[in-house]
Amino acid sequence: MKAPRPPRKGLVIVNTGNGKGKTTAALGVLFRAWGRDLRVIMLQFLKHEGARFGEIRAAEKIGVTIRPIGDGFTWTSRDMDKTIALARHGWEEAKRLILGHEYDVVILDEFTYPLQFGWLDTAEVIAWLQAHKPPSLHLIITGRDAPPELIAYADLVTEMREVKHPWAQQGLAAQPGIDF
Amino acid sequence: MKAPRPPRKGLVIVNTGNGKGKTTAALGVLFRAWGRDLRVIMLQFLKHEGARFGEIRAAEKIGVTIRPIGDGFTWTSRDMDKTIALARHGWEEAKRLILGHEYDVVILDEFTYPLQFGWLDTAEVIAWLQAHKPPSLHLIITGRDAPPELIAYADLVTEMREVKHPWAQQGLAAQPGIDF
Repeated sequence: MKAPRPPRKGLVIVNTGNGKGKTTAALGVLFRAWGRDLRVIMLQFLKHEGARFGEIRAAEKIGVTIRPIGDGFTWTSRDMDKTIALARHGWEEAKRLILGHEYDVVILDEFTYPLQFGWLDTAEVIAWLQAHKPPSLHLIITGRDAPPELIAYADLVTEMREVKHPWAQQGLAAQPGIDF
Repeated sequence: MKAPRPPRKGLVIVNTGNGKGKTTAALGVLFRAWGRDLRVIMLQFLKHEGARFGEIRAAEKIGVTIRPIGDGFTWTSRDMDKTIALARHGWEEAKRLILGHEYDVVILDEFTYPLQFGWLDTAEVIAWLQAHKPPSLHLIITGRDAPPELIAYADLVTEMREVKHPWAQQGLAAQPGIDF
């Protein structure tokens, strides 16, 4: 006898670890979801200077939004007040998208960093998601060092572990169209 | 003084490990490469029955080829002669694409399985790639249990490690547009 079909539900997916492929796998989901006519958006919480062109160009070509939050910020930012304000603004925008029922898949790229650096309170973020995320919404969060509370909350967690990396080991440059 | 710009070169990328995201990250590269007008193709060596619809639909929509090799085969196939013949045929097709200069990025999805199961000789495959892969071509290989010789040959190797998986742990079904 076959088991009853398991329930459908919006997954909370976390791609973490020190290796490549966290954002790239999220882009793969974005592409696959678009292929099934799901409505998908990516917010980028950590903007690398001028990078990501390949995916932003590709997303524009298919009419999917990949939106950097604010003006870009890093943990080496000179103006930490601004950096923190932008991260918090980004989270407000994420909440709006999560509540809005405009999207089937919301990707918060590099969202672990504001959590890890304490710009947002992880417990508050998880509590908000537990209370408010629509059950059918797929939520994807990427970034190194996912906090344990986020891993506990997530349905699917993958660690991308660096086995071999050409930039460090062979002095090769990041390759356009492959790495960004 | 800034170091001289490192050389550009076609990378050999391997996504392996027991976790999610190996094929999905390769799809992310496919999408990103397409965004930069690189010519990209994916051969799928292991065809899951009826799965992968999301990415195949998406690829069709943007005019990129994702081509299953042969009629589909697995290591539980009843007709192993046919299974092995299809894998070998797939590798011949891969060689043709690698030599053909028609593509900038060639993705051999789930190509580790024919190597792991001995349907192709890993040493011969690596020797052929070392002798024939055009230096500028990006080659991406996905699948569990990448053989050590392939890891040694590759430039960039990431292990996707399963930290938490909803199908096994929560009895949730694979979600269309997310998982396939």
